[in-house]
Amino acid sequence: MSPHDQDPDDRPGHAPVTLTLAALETEPLPGTLKGLPAIAEGVPLGGLGALGLSLLAGDLPLPAAILKDSALTHNARWMREFTARAGVSLAPHGKTTMSPQLFQRQFDEGAWGMTAATAAHVRTYRRFGVPRVLLANQLIGKADLELVFRELEASPDFDFYLLVDSAAGLDLLRRAAEERGLKRPLQVLLEVGTPGGRTGVRTTEEGATLGRLIRDAAPTIVLRGVEAFEGVYSGDDTARVELGALTMIETVAELTRLGCAEGWFAADEVLLTAGGSAFFDMAAKTLASVEAAGTGHALRVVLRSGCYLSHDSLQYERMQDRMRQRAGALWGEGPGLRNAIEVWAYVQSVPEPGRAICTAGRRDLSYDACLPQPLWWYRPSLHDAPRATPAHWAVTKLNDQHAYVDAGGASGTGSDGGALLLQVGDLIAFGVGHPCTTFDKWPLLYTVDDTYRVIGGVRTFF
Amino acid sequence: MSPHDQDPDDRPGHAPVTLTLAALETEPLPGTLKGLPAIAEGVPLGGLGALGLSLLAGDLPLPAAILKDSALTHNARWMREFTARAGVSLAPHGKTTMSPQLFQRQFDEGAWGMTAATAAHVRTYRRFGVPRVLLANQLIGKADLELVFRELEASPDFDFYLLVDSAAGLDLLRRAAEERGLKRPLQVLLEVGTPGGRTGVRTTEEGATLGRLIRDAAPTIVLRGVEAFEGVYSGDDTARVELGALTMIETVAELTRLGCAEGWFAADEVLLTAGGSAFFDMAAKTLASVEAAGTGHALRVVLRSGCYLSHDSLQYERMQDRMRQRAGALWGEGPGLRNAIEVWAYVQSVPEPGRAICTAGRRDLSYDACLPQPLWWYRPSLHDAPRATPAHWAVTKLNDQHAYVDAGGASGTGSDGGALLLQVGDLIAFGVGHPCTTFDKWPLLYTVDDTYRVIGGVRTFF
Repeated sequence: MSPHDQDPDDRPGHAPVTLTLAALETEPLPGTLKGLPAIAEGVPLGGLGALGLSLLAGDLPLPAAILKDSALTHNARWMREFTARAGVSLAPHGKTTMSPQLFQRQFDEGAWGMTAATAAHVRTYRRFGVPRVLLANQLIGKADLELVFRELEASPDFDFYLLVDSAAGLDLLRRAAEERGLKRPLQVLLEVGTPGGRTGVRTTEEGATLGRLIRDAAPTIVLRGVEAFEGVYSGDDTARVELGALTMIETVAELTRLGCAEGWFAADEVLLTAGGSAFFDMAAKTLASVEAAGTGHALRVVLRSGCYLSHDSLQYERMQDRMRQRAGALWGEGPGLRNAIEVWAYVQSVPEPGRAICTAGRRDLSYDACLPQPLWWYRPSLHDAPRATPAHWAVTKLNDQHAYVDAGGASGTGSDGGALLLQVGDLIAFGVGHPCTTFDKWPLLYTVDDTYRVIGGVRTFF
Repeated sequence: MSPHDQDPDDRPGHAPVTLTLAALETEPLPGTLKGLPAIAEGVPLGGLGALGLSLLAGDLPLPAAILKDSALTHNARWMREFTARAGVSLAPHGKTTMSPQLFQRQFDEGAWGMTAATAAHVRTYRRFGVPRVLLANQLIGKADLELVFRELEASPDFDFYLLVDSAAGLDLLRRAAEERGLKRPLQVLLEVGTPGGRTGVRTTEEGATLGRLIRDAAPTIVLRGVEAFEGVYSGDDTARVELGALTMIETVAELTRLGCAEGWFAADEVLLTAGGSAFFDMAAKTLASVEAAGTGHALRVVLRSGCYLSHDSLQYERMQDRMRQRAGALWGEGPGLRNAIEVWAYVQSVPEPGRAICTAGRRDLSYDACLPQPLWWYRPSLHDAPRATPAHWAVTKLNDQHAYVDAGGASGTGSDGGALLLQVGDLIAFGVGHPCTTFDKWPLLYTVDDTYRVIGGVRTFF
């Protein structure tokens, strides 16, 4: 990499606001954070754990979002062991949490890089020192390109990859890099899609045509690998979904083999990357078996799951059952990932028998994959610890700031003759079906021990 | 109001972070804000307008959310005139925007107070100096009560109201205030609900029983009025929805009359409050006609619409047609509120004819009331100004960071023979169907003039 001819500081703009993990820990928390108790206003994030706050003692205003520290630790370790067994690398999708503190935990457990969805994500990651970013998206528009170009120019050792899925996108990127006079090649991955899906080439033939075009765009643009997001396949039709996802993953493998044979790739190491949070077992198995012997290339398989760290109690928990079945010995011992994320709320009104209105809503809980589910019930005057909710309790509706919980039995009372009737002031923990759209509702989540004592806090940047 | 016996600064906790509108304007913008161009990082919010940024010139990374300043100004003024004609007051629901800058615009146009949904909202409002808050919700839990009690103790002139809808809730509130030794009465409104609805008493009889209980809780708790959120009624069955909403509003009127007659209310002025953003015409008409002559009380009707300021282009725009019909002369001249909010994105891929994948998704656009709709199309090389999209263009699906736009005709091309085919790099403006769940996805929205030049920025605190 050649040194900069132009100092990036000469470009217009002001001094960036300093954002480091250390600064995050010492900055006083403002009174605009939901879930922050009065006593914690002005306390630094790093001082939260010392306040002795207990969720079950009523020390947090609700709703509040918590992360079980033991589950985070377990999941981070579990994924390290899984990827080691599979012989693959991990660039977790940071868009799930947008939390540099959690990124650090992921790097501490051996992550190879972080995945981003937008140029704005890339900037945020860089402000917190993330050294390697895979932008799993196209990059369009002058101002988005500017965000990325500045980071590339500011740090010659910033290792950055992005996707290309069309000749038009390639052309746009090449012209922008040439006009900019970018001093090092833009590393791109060819994106594989699927008919009727999202972005990405639809067929191997389209992919081959584009692969050759990218090869010819060197040295401005260099092809470094092949990518797919097979998570566009979802739904109840398991056979169709799995076949679709597997076909995309196999197309990544096929185009990689073809590219190696035809000399598309600009470096020794070629990246094969796939893997949302629902099929990373399939991606690992299929892509790790691709052979590059004799081509002069070494292959690196990169998984990109974002949701494994918090996991959840609904959508990904159900998918995990199937992953474990598919993965066989690769899965290892034990059940796998554990749910780390819960949102707690109060019962604020029980206006009709069996109907409890709770103080959390669309502003607090994901609702795109499925409605949340009551997991735990806690009445301070009755329970020593949170009690698992009866299976028939359900969230029937969300408003912006309210959840409607149906906790009635057939007769309008609980199965043990009324003892399960919820009361105003009871606490309910909700499990969620999509971590990504829960994290983005919380600028601050608490890390708690297994008794729901607050041991720290996690900031997010959405 | 008696002076404090205990200085609230003696209570545990640290110095609050200073949050004022002036501080907001001068604080440098951090590089973690999505939609912020590289050139604006570190620039204070108040300096954004001087940067000469133009959305149409490609100066903003997309997605970006914009507010049309002319529409905001029009809507704020329109509501002032509407409430003046109706003889009612306005306490707009601040949860829609959670933007102290927009609250200020609402106060500048004569708002009587602000409505909040949670204790955390109340604290945020107070940090920015909002003098009167109507918490349109129950207040449950030690830590939530603490947030509110501190504010009441810190500022004897803070005028605060909250809801009670059950004897259990009343009891909880009374015990908390007594244990705290609160030096002034908690002002509550009796909440009217509806069978099968959210919070609130189900019948006039239940309301009357609770009204008498609250009367007897004086002086700790004092009844200051009657409240309903009739927006729990929604859907396509206009007759059922309107009858339901009207019945709730009429119950507010009925309980107010009964309360005046039975001496439930603790002050001369009694508040009657209702009105989300879909029925404020009905609330104004019905409640403003209640007579309190001879009861010793003066009535103040308070509307609480949150969405009128930005309005939208889908859900509330449709409801406005019906409001105008119902309101008759009260509506005044002209069509009413104008859409102020749009989210802009790039076309990043056109992987199949007529299918454009755009750079905005569930992280950027509301999707609870309905999917967003493409409003404007702009190709810099082709258009002088954004062009209204053909009516058949539609968003068919959202992922977290992507929108799927179907812009194909029956033949897969535009109706004018292909000229309407979207290209990579085109800009699309999306209209939304719910301002509340769009604002909460944007820590920074731009105010723009009618040519999409940035004249300022608006911060939100979700």
